[in-house]
Amino acid sequence: MLYWDMAISPKIENRADLPHVVIIGGGFAGIATARGLAKKPVRVTIIDKHNFHTFLPLLYQVATAGLEPADVAYPIRTIFGDAPNVRFRHARVRLVDQRENRLVLEDDSVLAYDHLVVATGAIASYFGIPGASRYALPLYSLADARALRNRVLLALERAEVASEHSSVALHFVVVGGGPTGVETAGALSELIGIAIKRDGLDLDPSQVRVKLVDLAPRLLTAFPESASTYAKKELERMGVDIEFGRSVVEVEEHAIRFSDGERLEAAAVIWAAGVTASGTLAQDLQASPGPSGRVRVTPDLRVLESANVWAVGDAALVPADHESFCPQLAPVAIQSGKHCARQLLRVLKGEETEPFRFKNKGIMATIGRRAAVAKLPVGGVIKGTLGWVAWLALHLWYLVGFRNRLRVMINWTWRYFDWPSGPRLIVADAETAD
Amino acid sequence: MLYWDMAISPKIENRADLPHVVIIGGGFAGIATARGLAKKPVRVTIIDKHNFHTFLPLLYQVATAGLEPADVAYPIRTIFGDAPNVRFRHARVRLVDQRENRLVLEDDSVLAYDHLVVATGAIASYFGIPGASRYALPLYSLADARALRNRVLLALERAEVASEHSSVALHFVVVGGGPTGVETAGALSELIGIAIKRDGLDLDPSQVRVKLVDLAPRLLTAFPESASTYAKKELERMGVDIEFGRSVVEVEEHAIRFSDGERLEAAAVIWAAGVTASGTLAQDLQASPGPSGRVRVTPDLRVLESANVWAVGDAALVPADHESFCPQLAPVAIQSGKHCARQLLRVLKGEETEPFRFKNKGIMATIGRRAAVAKLPVGGVIKGTLGWVAWLALHLWYLVGFRNRLRVMINWTWRYFDWPSGPRLIVADAETAD
Repeated sequence: MLYWDMAISPKIENRADLPHVVIIGGGFAGIATARGLAKKPVRVTIIDKHNFHTFLPLLYQVATAGLEPADVAYPIRTIFGDAPNVRFRHARVRLVDQRENRLVLEDDSVLAYDHLVVATGAIASYFGIPGASRYALPLYSLADARALRNRVLLALERAEVASEHSSVALHFVVVGGGPTGVETAGALSELIGIAIKRDGLDLDPSQVRVKLVDLAPRLLTAFPESASTYAKKELERMGVDIEFGRSVVEVEEHAIRFSDGERLEAAAVIWAAGVTASGTLAQDLQASPGPSGRVRVTPDLRVLESANVWAVGDAALVPADHESFCPQLAPVAIQSGKHCARQLLRVLKGEETEPFRFKNKGIMATIGRRAAVAKLPVGGVIKGTLGWVAWLALHLWYLVGFRNRLRVMINWTWRYFDWPSGPRLIVADAETAD
Repeated sequence: MLYWDMAISPKIENRADLPHVVIIGGGFAGIATARGLAKKPVRVTIIDKHNFHTFLPLLYQVATAGLEPADVAYPIRTIFGDAPNVRFRHARVRLVDQRENRLVLEDDSVLAYDHLVVATGAIASYFGIPGASRYALPLYSLADARALRNRVLLALERAEVASEHSSVALHFVVVGGGPTGVETAGALSELIGIAIKRDGLDLDPSQVRVKLVDLAPRLLTAFPESASTYAKKELERMGVDIEFGRSVVEVEEHAIRFSDGERLEAAAVIWAAGVTASGTLAQDLQASPGPSGRVRVTPDLRVLESANVWAVGDAALVPADHESFCPQLAPVAIQSGKHCARQLLRVLKGEETEPFRFKNKGIMATIGRRAAVAKLPVGGVIKGTLGWVAWLALHLWYLVGFRNRLRVMINWTWRYFDWPSGPRLIVADAETAD
């Protein structure tokens, strides 16, 4: 067989006598952990229900037809193609049996581990608001992004056909004024504008409304006030309505209700209001998990009272100092994964572990083409085009794989120069396709 | 609103007093017809159940993870973004009411036409073989391509996990030795080779088998015998088993049965055995349609006994000369669409119509990287790398949109130089994703 090379056979390198580290989750934290263990004297198995890593910071671009799924997803096997000691298993975990040091998978097979790393990430939090989990559209997976894109493009198609443009058809509500909400609202406004201009949709632009609502009194509360003011001004320039101090009490199929009794009709309600640790797996690890279901860990990132189970990234309540915890952000996930890998190797060598220290390298959010805000670790804020270029460079840098970087770069160059923009495909799911 | 420009408003250009031409189908034939009518004194509405045109000759590349859906699909609205007299309607047609000159759509709305162009294309033909339509995987839409890709990649994942590699897990059968079958078998063999090599799958390559079966005594029967011999040699070099004179009598979920009683287990049966006119719409147009349900048309491509209903492309029994009919191929679809547009404009001006004449520009099929066969209209055959380059150039030329051409070119350049190849993503459909 032409494509087979015995020299890199995993059968040879993946020796059964080496300690077995199982990592649940192929997000930023899980991938960073596995990278730290690649080509080290351990056997590593990454388990994920998807065979690809998703670059979550760019999901909103997929949702708004700026990028394609393959631009922000990368097969996990390919990432570790040159690390014969790292394996991938396409599966879901049913339960963790800490006493027996093994996992039970959904197909009832059993996987034994010497060390377990829980990197199961986070999912959208609906705070128990009625209808929210059923009708609001989150943006936390590739499937979410595709669903949102289809909903928006179909709403435009339907609005054109409707004999009278009802107000519901062209109203979109984004709940949440953090980076995801700001980025999605900005990109959504751009998408609709481009769709009407480029695709010759017979729609009255004055009927289109993208509204961003938040309970907080300003956007991007993790940033200094000047960044919030700038983001608000830019979004408003792009036609986004912004309302602060709005508390959502119910989400319906095509409407949203606020605590003051107002009911707003909308073609789609996009949910960017916050996250909680993913699923019940992380919670089941300990009797009393931390806020948002995050796993409580020791300073070296081991699950409290465990010697060989670790938790990293959004699923873990990663300590920032003695009093507080790190936010659920990509840099924390990456740094905690790297730290976990180093400590795990120390434990295997019988050495003392070191506590995790988060290095703040700043935060960033983009608002539209040529507009972004970046907060530097030393307190400064970069705004506007320079911020956008910095945002672009950083995100490209972190994108897994040179091929993906190039693809995304090309797509963005296109967007920037305003050529026939974006693959506005409504790709139906299997049940409706034929 | 920033993105709105009254000068190109379809409301102004799309004057209600102009004759209304409705085209059903946004494939090669429908798009060619609409292009011929763009910026002419008619109102055009293209109806399709998808909002994009699919470049069918490259679907097998999407199915085998060489290209992404967005590489071979292009939004129909964007194609006609500069033609204000061409509109798009995202809908399915329930029935054609020829007496009243109107269509009834699936949402019960009614669309009146002055001229109707039926360009509904073709779908896989299963020849009434039991189980074939249910279990075999066709390759005639973007959804088909995604389904096939997921099936193949999941089969590899499952085979690795299985304690004993059962023969079913790594066997793939392609039914049909025409261009689609040859291209798919070759690309499938490449995909599996790359997946095992690049992704470190713990699979024994000698267990993998891609088998191509056909009833005919040779591959590519539309080509001269030397092309068939070459294609067979190349496919066999890539590890594809080829069996001629095999008649399929039944397809099961994971097996295929032949007329000689042999039953072959397989992870997937890919169906490339032939096509029939799509759906019942075309057939309902006339009491006795032609072979494979194709609509019988006059030499100017009007449906027999109709003055204002036309049929083009795979859905029509396009006359080649007095005795025979054109094959269901992309060049016929494109040329018949162009011809229909010209004749339709003549009819509107009160001029005589001209009969359709197919210009044979040759046919081509690719077998793998750097191997293809092309049959020239004057009878010559080009084989090997030169054939592959010709195939590449021609397909890139016909790809709609400069952006798509560039994307596909980049992907192929990558493939050619054998870098971490192809987006081998298993993108789940909505019902299984979370």
